[in-house]
Amino acid sequence: MTYQPGTMGVVVQNIERIDQEIIDGLAECGVSTVHEAQGRKGLLDDCMRPIFSGARIAGSALTILAPPCDNWMIHVGIEQLKRGDVMLMGTVTPSNAGYFGDLLATSALARGCRGMIIDGGVRDVRDLTEMGFPVWARSVHAQGTIKETLGSVNVPVVCAGELVNPGDIVVADDDGVCIVRREEAASVLEKAQAREASEADRRVRFEAGELGLDIYGMRKRLAEKGLKYV
Amino acid sequence: MTYQPGTMGVVVQNIERIDQEIIDGLAECGVSTVHEAQGRKGLLDDCMRPIFSGARIAGSALTILAPPCDNWMIHVGIEQLKRGDVMLMGTVTPSNAGYFGDLLATSALARGCRGMIIDGGVRDVRDLTEMGFPVWARSVHAQGTIKETLGSVNVPVVCAGELVNPGDIVVADDDGVCIVRREEAASVLEKAQAREASEADRRVRFEAGELGLDIYGMRKRLAEKGLKYV
Amino acid sequence: MTYQPGTMGVVVQNIERIDQEIIDGLAECGVSTVHEAQGRKGLLDDCMRPIFSGARIAGSALTILAPPCDNWMIHVGIEQLKRGDVMLMGTVTPSNAGYFGDLLATSALARGCRGMIIDGGVRDVRDLTEMGFPVWARSVHAQGTIKETLGSVNVPVVCAGELVNPGDIVVADDDGVCIVRREEAASVLEKAQAREASEADRRVRFEAGELGLDIYGMRKRLAEKGLKYV
Amino acid sequence: MTYQPGTMGVVVQNIERIDQEIIDGLAECGVSTVHEAQGRKGLLDDCMRPIFSGARIAGSALTILAPPCDNWMIHVGIEQLKRGDVMLMGTVTPSNAGYFGDLLATSALARGCRGMIIDGGVRDVRDLTEMGFPVWARSVHAQGTIKETLGSVNVPVVCAGELVNPGDIVVADDDGVCIVRREEAASVLEKAQAREASEADRRVRFEAGELGLDIYGMRKRLAEKGLKYV
Amino acid sequence: MTYQPGTMGVVVQNIERIDQEIIDGLAECGVSTVHEAQGRKGLLDDCMRPIFSGARIAGSALTILAPPCDNWMIHVGIEQLKRGDVMLMGTVTPSNAGYFGDLLATSALARGCRGMIIDGGVRDVRDLTEMGFPVWARSVHAQGTIKETLGSVNVPVVCAGELVNPGDIVVADDDGVCIVRREEAASVLEKAQAREASEADRRVRFEAGELGLDIYGMRKRLAEKGLKYV
Amino acid sequence: MTYQPGTMGVVVQNIERIDQEIIDGLAECGVSTVHEAQGRKGLLDDCMRPIFSGARIAGSALTILAPPCDNWMIHVGIEQLKRGDVMLMGTVTPSNAGYFGDLLATSALARGCRGMIIDGGVRDVRDLTEMGFPVWARSVHAQGTIKETLGSVNVPVVCAGELVNPGDIVVADDDGVCIVRREEAASVLEKAQAREASEADRRVRFEAGELGLDIYGMRKRLAEKGLKYV
Repeated sequence: MTYQPGTMGVVVQNIERIDQEIIDGLAECGVSTVHEAQGRKGLLDDCMRPIFSGARIAGSALTILAPPCDNWMIHVGIEQLKRGDVMLMGTVTPSNAGYFGDLLATSALARGCRGMIIDGGVRDVRDLTEMGFPVWARSVHAQGTIKETLGSVNVPVVCAGELVNPGDIVVADDDGVCIVRREEAASVLEKAQAREASEADRRVRFEAGELGLDIYGMRKRLAEKGLKYV
Repeated sequence: MTYQPGTMGVVVQNIERIDQEIIDGLAECGVSTVHEAQGRKGLLDDCMRPIFSGARIAGSALTILAPPCDNWMIHVGIEQLKRGDVMLMGTVTPSNAGYFGDLLATSALARGCRGMIIDGGVRDVRDLTEMGFPVWARSVHAQGTIKETLGSVNVPVVCAGELVNPGDIVVADDDGVCIVRREEAASVLEKAQAREASEADRRVRFEAGELGLDIYGMRKRLAEKGLKYV
Repeated sequence: MTYQPGTMGVVVQNIERIDQEIIDGLAECGVSTVHEAQGRKGLLDDCMRPIFSGARIAGSALTILAPPCDNWMIHVGIEQLKRGDVMLMGTVTPSNAGYFGDLLATSALARGCRGMIIDGGVRDVRDLTEMGFPVWARSVHAQGTIKETLGSVNVPVVCAGELVNPGDIVVADDDGVCIVRREEAASVLEKAQAREASEADRRVRFEAGELGLDIYGMRKRLAEKGLKYV
Repeated sequence: MTYQPGTMGVVVQNIERIDQEIIDGLAECGVSTVHEAQGRKGLLDDCMRPIFSGARIAGSALTILAPPCDNWMIHVGIEQLKRGDVMLMGTVTPSNAGYFGDLLATSALARGCRGMIIDGGVRDVRDLTEMGFPVWARSVHAQGTIKETLGSVNVPVVCAGELVNPGDIVVADDDGVCIVRREEAASVLEKAQAREASEADRRVRFEAGELGLDIYGMRKRLAEKGLKYV
Repeated sequence: MTYQPGTMGVVVQNIERIDQEIIDGLAECGVSTVHEAQGRKGLLDDCMRPIFSGARIAGSALTILAPPCDNWMIHVGIEQLKRGDVMLMGTVTPSNAGYFGDLLATSALARGCRGMIIDGGVRDVRDLTEMGFPVWARSVHAQGTIKETLGSVNVPVVCAGELVNPGDIVVADDDGVCIVRREEAASVLEKAQAREASEADRRVRFEAGELGLDIYGMRKRLAEKGLKYV
Repeated sequence: MTYQPGTMGVVVQNIERIDQEIIDGLAECGVSTVHEAQGRKGLLDDCMRPIFSGARIAGSALTILAPPCDNWMIHVGIEQLKRGDVMLMGTVTPSNAGYFGDLLATSALARGCRGMIIDGGVRDVRDLTEMGFPVWARSVHAQGTIKETLGSVNVPVVCAGELVNPGDIVVADDDGVCIVRREEAASVLEKAQAREASEADRRVRFEAGELGLDIYGMRKRLAEKGLKYV
């Protein structure tokens, strides 16, 4: 059964996940390449920044829908984690409160979670950095949250402007966060790897001093559009 | 005598400071723990970011009230510094100008200042980083300021949304900045340390794979609220 | 011939560049000092942040004017690069799209480009960081751009609130980005170096515990303005 | 068949719409009441503001997914309008360009459209105001858009942080925009009207000087929480 | 007894209010004049906007301190209102939730309240406009709030960057909101009225075509500073 | 002689202005049409909003360059006004201070000024509205400014992201502000009027129910791009 985004009070226990190999391949390609390979969609808003540089992950989305300033559902969500998942939290209304910190990360890490995407605030960033637990968030904020109202786990959520279904692939690195639909992941990986191969080839030519104008054959079209060299 | 926040043209020379040991204890607990321990108050706005990662300080607040784009009062304030103080500057009206740089930091450091909190901009961040002088600010901005109009030193100021009295304890780390009232500092430290102790215990349990749902006994209340597992 | 800012469809092939020695001198002085030395003008908006810390560059501006979400003109601009140039891109209308990434940087680097200033978004920041190619941008964003509409190369452009002429000197470091007019560069360098010398002297005095109040002789004027010590 | 949010290149011609009477009832209740009646969900981000005051509409959502700075799909969408619909446009990536103006409004109005919700910019606001065609948008911006890339019509879209399915009910007034799921609309209307009735009753008591503390019986719970009157 | 800003769980029942005549005089002078008359202090952040144009009020501040997304304390505050008061709400942490709407306004109006200043969101703006109940807020937002956590009434609060004591005078019009300390109100009114008188005189001269350069005798100082006419 | 943008301390007394008839024609066409007619350039940032609705002006730009929080140069500029001019102020560094109010407007009006464009804040908006003196600004803010530092009058300035030369045509209405180069004004007017004529024709067809898909012949190209109707 599928739930509407925004459904409250439900924990979906079994979600489909795709092959870890495909997921790992997407992580290696990185956000910008994956985003291009799937036709420039799936990108979260550029306010989502990593708490430290250099992390490069992918995983099946364990989705969490949280009421404003309430992180209760993260505890509920951690129980549903499978090794290799990435937790991703959307909120009912925007908030920069600090929904996630080092204790929750310790618990998530113990269950094999690879990282956290949070449309809100994160805290304990020094500890998280030492643990090497990567988080992409809208804000770093110590502001505490409460545990009063139900949200949901593993229903579709909107996170930083993008709809994410449970089991969709989350790809995240220094360039931001990109979502790949589960059913498109294999073909997106193929296109992303093809793109990487052709980029590697072009990188050699660029290093040798060739110009994009020639490599991509742009001169004729520029002239047709009327570009004037003076 | 106590001055109203916003009082202009006054330098208060003698302010009460609390025991350095309590202050150092608060620094060790860090912003998020201290903020929780005192009932989730005292947190500056999350726009206040450190210029480099990893600093973790606390100190008695030497407060400065500055007119827009005018940093004259920082010079006045430095004379009033005692070893272990943290300078904290609020402005009469918001401004991102670069009020503080490496020369002022050199002077402050020579008098034992531990860091600077500035509701505005900072510059010379490369030099400040090399000196290891930590600054939390709203912006990094080279824009110069003038020395034309009086403000005050050691009157209460509003800084990034929080009222700070001279002598209040400033705690600052990668999570932001939190203010502790001087008269509450001892009891806040006690609660913060108790919190740390219980967190250490829970961390071990989380690492062993126990869930927050069980550690905090949340399952019954979630069921009462109507959470459905499907 | 001089072109109006905003002129579309033109590539100016020969622009005047000043002596590399002056440019390198400005880089050494850094943004905040140069900004002060030229009377506090020429500073780009403080939203322009480096993608990694510690870079400190200067170069002749190779200017690019780009339509929204269209990075075609960067390819055109790269052909016009001379060793030691800095590329600087303004847009016709604000956009955070990711106009620039590692392949373009590889090409620019092969032609001796020292860095990129971009009034928009940048991507592949991990690769750019590994390459040591510094970029100052408004945003990190993977969002792809198109190649459909003409802009211009080496016409005056507005970038982050400042007018930049081709051949003006771009100075950039951790404090942001500052523009020096080509015809003023020599005299600005002189003033900047004088400023540095006097700052070095004052730094020694500050380190020894002298106060700005005394070094700058501020006490009398503060008293005249009515500052009260209580 | 149902499409994934973000599907490009598709126009769904037949969507289910609910009874106009229910829709009109929701319009009369208004955004704040409807939002409360459905458990405080469905609200678009508060950056969505009306171009003039006093409009109060509801309608079935004709959804449009637009590439950045490209309004081609609005033309495609207008053909699919049924009398009483509200057009709602989401974008693949955030943009403030002026996607919609008076000519498009004239065309939409001719087909019975009640208003436009646009996660981007609008222009010709003076003409739109004279026409009485209400628009809720993120920005007023004259910046023109192009017609180059396909998007979709009547697939689910994310608009200002909320997922909207074609045929969902859009309720909009001076307080913002709220989405009601088609299948929940009848029951939400019922709850909203009940809420209105009880509010009318309470309004009379408030006007007579009774206090919320007494009307809602809050005094005991406040005392239990420890509220001190001094 | 005086309470620290940020004190939670306290309702101060008796606060000092000054003469209504002084308050009404300040309302007539308006925000910009009052702000100037008291030395350019007391101004709330410019994000505080009125929900409709033309309102011009002043009143004794009935202060409310609210936890995030919780409007319980407004009910508590309304009981403490005296005829002529203005309610002013600060929050423990920033939030745009809709804390205040038409029912609360009805209750406040019944007790003689003149308006509301709210460092957060407001809703039911159409009804509030019809009632003529003016509100200055950071946001218009339908998002509902809860009634779970204690705050305080009539303790000092920080609101939009300014410290406000209970009984301070709130002056608000289309230019924003300005706070006058109770003990300074009489002298500020005097200066504001003097300022108004001299402005009336100057307005006549400006209307007759005289220049500020001559009225204020600026030409000599401009020349001394080196202004060149070319 | 032409001055560089950013030149300080200069008042240019004689600037070229074009025919009033062309200017009035541009005002009638309005911002969105003029912006399109000149190839979508010249538009100021969309943060520039009118203080009241319905104004529609054009005039020759009398440019003012102001230091941060200093409005001295406006007094200097008013003396240089010719009947029909629009004053336009850029700042050396961004600031929301209230540079302009009703007394300055009275003086400007007495000299035939049609309105003010200000890359900063404005105050006395109620009085300005009553006077019918239109202002487009970044902010409404009562914050006072000083008269200490020289800027310039009638040198080129950057205002809200656009370079404006003295004598360029400023067109402003509810959609924002657009700049037309003096030398292009006549041809832009011609194109704008042609555009208006063709829009009038199309408006009739839209009102009759014809679709943009047919009026603009879009169906074939949409099919070629692969749009699927389902």
